[in-house]
Amino acid sequence: MRLAELSERSGVAPATIKYYLREGLLPPGHRVTATQADYDTAHLQRLKLVRALIQVGRVPVAAAKEVLAALEDDSLDHHSRLGVAVEALPNAPEPDPADPHARAARASVDALVDGLGWQYGGSDPQGSSGAYRTLLAAVTALARLGYPCSTEELAPYAAAAAQVAVTDLDLVERYDAPAEQVEAAVALTVLYEPVLLNLRRLAQAQESARRFVRP
Amino acid sequence: MRLAELSERSGVAPATIKYYLREGLLPPGHRVTATQADYDTAHLQRLKLVRALIQVGRVPVAAAKEVLAALEDDSLDHHSRLGVAVEALPNAPEPDPADPHARAARASVDALVDGLGWQYGGSDPQGSSGAYRTLLAAVTALARLGYPCSTEELAPYAAAAAQVAVTDLDLVERYDAPAEQVEAAVALTVLYEPVLLNLRRLAQAQESARRFVRP
Repeated sequence: MRLAELSERSGVAPATIKYYLREGLLPPGHRVTATQADYDTAHLQRLKLVRALIQVGRVPVAAAKEVLAALEDDSLDHHSRLGVAVEALPNAPEPDPADPHARAARASVDALVDGLGWQYGGSDPQGSSGAYRTLLAAVTALARLGYPCSTEELAPYAAAAAQVAVTDLDLVERYDAPAEQVEAAVALTVLYEPVLLNLRRLAQAQESARRFVRP
Repeated sequence: MRLAELSERSGVAPATIKYYLREGLLPPGHRVTATQADYDTAHLQRLKLVRALIQVGRVPVAAAKEVLAALEDDSLDHHSRLGVAVEALPNAPEPDPADPHARAARASVDALVDGLGWQYGGSDPQGSSGAYRTLLAAVTALARLGYPCSTEELAPYAAAAAQVAVTDLDLVERYDAPAEQVEAAVALTVLYEPVLLNLRRLAQAQESARRFVRP
């Protein structure tokens, strides 16, 4: 297919596709004439992944290049490829460890993560993940504003998150090709965030009515 | 207490407190001399709520004034006051109803919300909420990117959200005074969002390891 069709089928503007080609995020098309190139379904697939990373996930171009390199690294297993892609999504910086609120937050979060037997937390010998550090920043912000969270307060949120993650991976596994699964993992992680948060706000309104409105 | 102590106890900078006083978001202090005023715990409480709305929830000043007016409206019950405060949080605009992706999204979301018997959806005679309209925008964005969501796909997210909402309201009800509950509802709704989303990303990593890594 020509660039116009690639644009139409991917929903990505031609100028943006040309930018991705220049940046090496998309391999060059098969040259047809001096000014025209032909693209195939592998280009379409790659373009959807690049769009998921950059347009949906707001991943910087340099980090997107690292994800694409990891996808082509045969020494990595499928779990690691999914992890590299989701880990490239922007994260908050780790809070200053000298801040007493950050210390309290770390104690609560580490007890939670270790108690659940989860990896990629602060005491994982393989190192912590961006999600762990962003979680730490969020719990530190709560403590600073006068809402410290104990491990017990965080536990029901972790239980709901674990349940959501099973649904997430079920959706990802509906796609057959490993590269499609990686694209879906990035896109669905990001795109379901406002779905989950606004379902929560709607559910809060129902629960508030249940508790505070006399029938 | 003087302005300096009000600042220290609330964690809000003196210049910001003066701005809130000028905007009428905080009632004037009790005049002591021509240049000094005294503030009490009611000021501290109100300041925490204003901070929760504006600094944490990114609510515009005009909308924050409406929330404060609703809090003083004796004709409203507690559920309505919580609702007015959370509803003031920024929402996405409703998607264009002529867009076919928006129509498909609305069909899925309405079947979900009506099936659960939830209020404040598109077919509620009392009108839809900002959370409903933002949910619609998020499901429309998924469909536009090639990930349409059926009611069945949304249902497990709604179930997790309902569970989280019970925990949220339990946290809010730990505060005794109705005004403190409103402040906590706004602050905890916003501040637990990154907690929930990053617990989900950590949980996804555990679930991916469970499915794809051979022991």
